[in-house]
Amino acid sequence: MSDYRIIEVKQDVLADNDRAAEALRRELKDQKTFLLNLMSSPGAGKTTTLVRTIMDLKDRVRMGVMEADIDSDVDARTIANAGAKAIQLHTGGMCHLDAAMTRQGLMEFGAADMDLVILENVGNLVCPAEFDTGAVKNAMILSVPEGDDKPLKYPLMFEICDAVLINKCDTLSVFDDFSRERVVQNIRLRNPRCEIIFLSAKTGEGFQAWEDWLMAQVTAHNGKEA
Amino acid sequence: MSDYRIIEVKQDVLADNDRAAEALRRELKDQKTFLLNLMSSPGAGKTTTLVRTIMDLKDRVRMGVMEADIDSDVDARTIANAGAKAIQLHTGGMCHLDAAMTRQGLMEFGAADMDLVILENVGNLVCPAEFDTGAVKNAMILSVPEGDDKPLKYPLMFEICDAVLINKCDTLSVFDDFSRERVVQNIRLRNPRCEIIFLSAKTGEGFQAWEDWLMAQVTAHNGKEA
Repeated sequence: MSDYRIIEVKQDVLADNDRAAEALRRELKDQKTFLLNLMSSPGAGKTTTLVRTIMDLKDRVRMGVMEADIDSDVDARTIANAGAKAIQLHTGGMCHLDAAMTRQGLMEFGAADMDLVILENVGNLVCPAEFDTGAVKNAMILSVPEGDDKPLKYPLMFEICDAVLINKCDTLSVFDDFSRERVVQNIRLRNPRCEIIFLSAKTGEGFQAWEDWLMAQVTAHNGKEA
Repeated sequence: MSDYRIIEVKQDVLADNDRAAEALRRELKDQKTFLLNLMSSPGAGKTTTLVRTIMDLKDRVRMGVMEADIDSDVDARTIANAGAKAIQLHTGGMCHLDAAMTRQGLMEFGAADMDLVILENVGNLVCPAEFDTGAVKNAMILSVPEGDDKPLKYPLMFEICDAVLINKCDTLSVFDDFSRERVVQNIRLRNPRCEIIFLSAKTGEGFQAWEDWLMAQVTAHNGKEA
């Protein structure tokens, strides 16, 4: 019985959220701000990836990062130190961000003047996949130590992403049961079209491809060269 | 507004769940079955840790493993191959198990004849911490590649655990920004009493301590030498 009630509420909430997300996406299009929703497991390297991305792109685009966290400001401090505008959203125990929370964050952030905002979602492969944040595109980071079978276990996350970044590739020799070929096969079972980029936020391997992809999305959305 | 509604429902559901969990714990006490709820991020090594634990303990206790997964049977097959009774619970997209789902799994499993059942919860550091499964004790695995700051970011998970296993310690030389001292400090901020065990499911380091802890819990709960 408690199952039944959870599901009913969830569908109602999800339908409301989908409408709010579509409305937010229309506004972002009008104001020429590209919003990327970045997801991963805890510890896959979202913040480290963002720090390197900021270093490389901060002189080319006006960018900001919204950090979602249950209860800390570790990441926002790191991002601000890297030289991007940063804001920390405390979710108060919530396991994901929805479109309303994202809109609130963007407003407080003053995102209308920015070309690119990256939303670092709560570290979680389940719930964030279910709630459309209103972002223009979704990306996720799978790190090598997590294993190449994760697309089989967290299918929705891989289905909804426009780009999948395989991080910590510098550790492939240590995690020798992780196969590049097998992870691509497993991702393709869920998503035949997404961009798949192997990288290492530690060494910088693959960052050219990732940043090229990201900047192409920004330009296409905002309708101008960044 | 959608925030408000989510929270109200959640509290209602959580209160119902807490009652169901207490009832399940009383039954487990009566039938002398020790249930451990094992949690972690995706890819922290729950299944690999369990395989080694089964190999070591299967001749000493009647044990079984309930695998919770959104949509796959990868883990149940692995566990069955290791020689323990296994059952796969498909959560149908749910990000956690609650007490009702756990009870259902135990019934279908025929757990009354077992001394020890380990529930491998959905890979997620957020939601499973909020829903009491009815287990006698909670344990979680934090793996070295995830970083030593995770207790700061996922406080509730660390608060509710009776044991924290630090896995993949064989990779400490690769992940040299992970500090044993710092992770212990961060865990202690959340939980002054839990058992903290450093181990490697790959090399077997630390398994004696982990299995000693586990068997002591089983004996204390079931009221007999296993």
